[in-house]
Amino acid sequence: MRGDWTDLFSGRARAIRPSAIRAMAKYLGEPGVISFAGGSPDPRYFPADEIAATAADILSAPERRRQALQYGASEGYLPLREFLSGELTARHAPVGADEIIVTSGSQQALEFLGKTFLDAGDRIVVSNPTYIGALQAFSLFAPEIASVSTSTAGLDLDVLDGALKRGAKFLYLMPDYANPTGQSLSMEDRLAVLNLAARHRTPIVEDQAYEHLLISGERMPSLLRLAQSHPQRPDIIHVGTFSKSLMPGLRVGWIAAAAPLIAKLVAIKQASDLNSSCLNQMIVHDVAKEIFANRAETLAQAYRLKRDATLNALSQYMPNGIEWTRPTGGMFVWLTLPAGVDTTAIQMRVFEKAKVLYVPGASFHPNGGGENTIRLSYSLNDPEQIESGIRRLADALSAVMADDAVSA
Amino acid sequence: MRGDWTDLFSGRARAIRPSAIRAMAKYLGEPGVISFAGGSPDPRYFPADEIAATAADILSAPERRRQALQYGASEGYLPLREFLSGELTARHAPVGADEIIVTSGSQQALEFLGKTFLDAGDRIVVSNPTYIGALQAFSLFAPEIASVSTSTAGLDLDVLDGALKRGAKFLYLMPDYANPTGQSLSMEDRLAVLNLAARHRTPIVEDQAYEHLLISGERMPSLLRLAQSHPQRPDIIHVGTFSKSLMPGLRVGWIAAAAPLIAKLVAIKQASDLNSSCLNQMIVHDVAKEIFANRAETLAQAYRLKRDATLNALSQYMPNGIEWTRPTGGMFVWLTLPAGVDTTAIQMRVFEKAKVLYVPGASFHPNGGGENTIRLSYSLNDPEQIESGIRRLADALSAVMADDAVSA
Repeated sequence: MRGDWTDLFSGRARAIRPSAIRAMAKYLGEPGVISFAGGSPDPRYFPADEIAATAADILSAPERRRQALQYGASEGYLPLREFLSGELTARHAPVGADEIIVTSGSQQALEFLGKTFLDAGDRIVVSNPTYIGALQAFSLFAPEIASVSTSTAGLDLDVLDGALKRGAKFLYLMPDYANPTGQSLSMEDRLAVLNLAARHRTPIVEDQAYEHLLISGERMPSLLRLAQSHPQRPDIIHVGTFSKSLMPGLRVGWIAAAAPLIAKLVAIKQASDLNSSCLNQMIVHDVAKEIFANRAETLAQAYRLKRDATLNALSQYMPNGIEWTRPTGGMFVWLTLPAGVDTTAIQMRVFEKAKVLYVPGASFHPNGGGENTIRLSYSLNDPEQIESGIRRLADALSAVMADDAVSA
Repeated sequence: MRGDWTDLFSGRARAIRPSAIRAMAKYLGEPGVISFAGGSPDPRYFPADEIAATAADILSAPERRRQALQYGASEGYLPLREFLSGELTARHAPVGADEIIVTSGSQQALEFLGKTFLDAGDRIVVSNPTYIGALQAFSLFAPEIASVSTSTAGLDLDVLDGALKRGAKFLYLMPDYANPTGQSLSMEDRLAVLNLAARHRTPIVEDQAYEHLLISGERMPSLLRLAQSHPQRPDIIHVGTFSKSLMPGLRVGWIAAAAPLIAKLVAIKQASDLNSSCLNQMIVHDVAKEIFANRAETLAQAYRLKRDATLNALSQYMPNGIEWTRPTGGMFVWLTLPAGVDTTAIQMRVFEKAKVLYVPGASFHPNGGGENTIRLSYSLNDPEQIESGIRRLADALSAVMADDAVSA
């Protein structure tokens, strides 16, 4: 019996690191802790009664329950793919059911895209910072990752042009209410990105995980929608999920893309886990069909209170020298502290003073940097907790930065 | 917009082929067709009432439904892992909850093991023939696959010794009621395999997907169980699933292995799809806890009728020169036709005569061969269909072989 398995592991298994976010879970149980760390949606807004009623319907009808409990098609439950076809066509651009594969959440969608496109050393381009789960999924296939800075001024388009010119299998972006910054790409940046993608013939993976969490202002057109009217029709691989609009626990997401790519992804799905749970796909389909029309407004109201409380508390309590984003959707605010502050290094001191958890921003940077940044999620807290938590966080950051300034 | 995506695909995506089994689905809808092709369990024996009642319970309790619909732990739902720990300890060998990860079916378990162990060109050893889904999962990571013949006389141990001596990341075996042959390893072969694995320090991936489908005779001890009393304690990576014992549609399987390997697999799970559906894990746990004790007997009775009908019909109708296995469990019988008959080439002629579907055996052979073999599954048919289908298949095979003998 071997104690150490390392010498048997693949390169990817040796390289993989558990998420910094999940490592914080052990502190969550302490009394009085307020966490801005997790990225889970607020369970108070899960449509649980509708899910219960739907599950009961499916599991009481002989034919339907037989289908729900048996193996299913690798491409997904056809009525769900047809529903998504209708939704995507209405919101973005014409998408047929044969241009959609159902995945077990959008995390699996990203992993499948890595698996389908990436040999070791292949180049991809991502924004900097970017979604940590995408980095984890793509990194399983050992790509070379070029990152393009994004800031309140937008994407660095010169760097993007240069990165795409060197060749890349795809460009990965989250254009709306991005994880981790909460920011959205401007209309100018969207059009510029499409031009560059068309010029270099690079497909864009558009991750729309948060698209149903618009809080205020106008929804901007997705890259999928804009690409339809672009003269060169750049290739968009659209990734979505019901995790934020309905619930994460049923693990239902999707990829919408050109039919030949979907056909390849179906073979990848079959080799990877045969098919996503039929019961879950049926529940999601039946619930979404009934409630999706009014869903965005329900969520906007819920998350607007949280976001406003966050932005108000940041304005009221944060010391000078700390900047933050002002998202119009999603569940994240991104803080930038003065250069030289290392939010990973001070995390435990802040926690001891404030009993507040955040995610240090460095882990969202594939090529280093971002040590002075923080991701805050307001999704799981009510406005009173947010006000109290941000006040405690601000006080602790002020104290720690003052201590360090004295000792420096 | 590109029409051809091939030049962007990874090597693994270019190499992957959709399953020959799933390609046959289109013929299933024709009237009068009897299929022995699929490997799905009989839905008449899904515990659907228990599942409906359990789902209703979970989805009506505020705390439980919140947990069921939220993100969950990558390692799986703790009560389910504790239940599996108890089951595996009782049936096989002491296994702690920290030595178990829940996966989305055993197909995902196999894919994770490929991902965790295999760099391109790494060697693995499998039986010949072997489970096609394992070949698909492992092949994503481009291993060199050595295969060891198995026949009614057992595994070719000299070839196995030689293959392990050349070095292998793991040996993959399905010791009980194997897919595709229906055969089980003899006690002598089990002990010999453990000796060879210990000598060459090669972990064994023991796939026990069919373990709950014992039909007749005595259950043989698993490799996991036998390894406990082996002086060198060879490493067993035990893969299991509820797909055959309860239902496939909830996609719940597992890997039981040494804790350091499980820890690595948890990081792989996180990067691959975060976690398996919490609702499904809770349903499976609650149902299994209630009915698992009597489950094996229920299934044995159901599948015994099917297997007996299959073996009786084969004896009654098959022409001379065709041999078959006599399984004591599972859902497959393996036919060997005279050398020179190509069961892939004659498949459509047989289908047109008999309206019977089978799976040609060649696809279960990683390195060629087996052109004269056939996999029959009796799981979805009742005894009358089996009798009629085997008779029609036998007549068609006789006719086609006679035609070909005349024209040869």
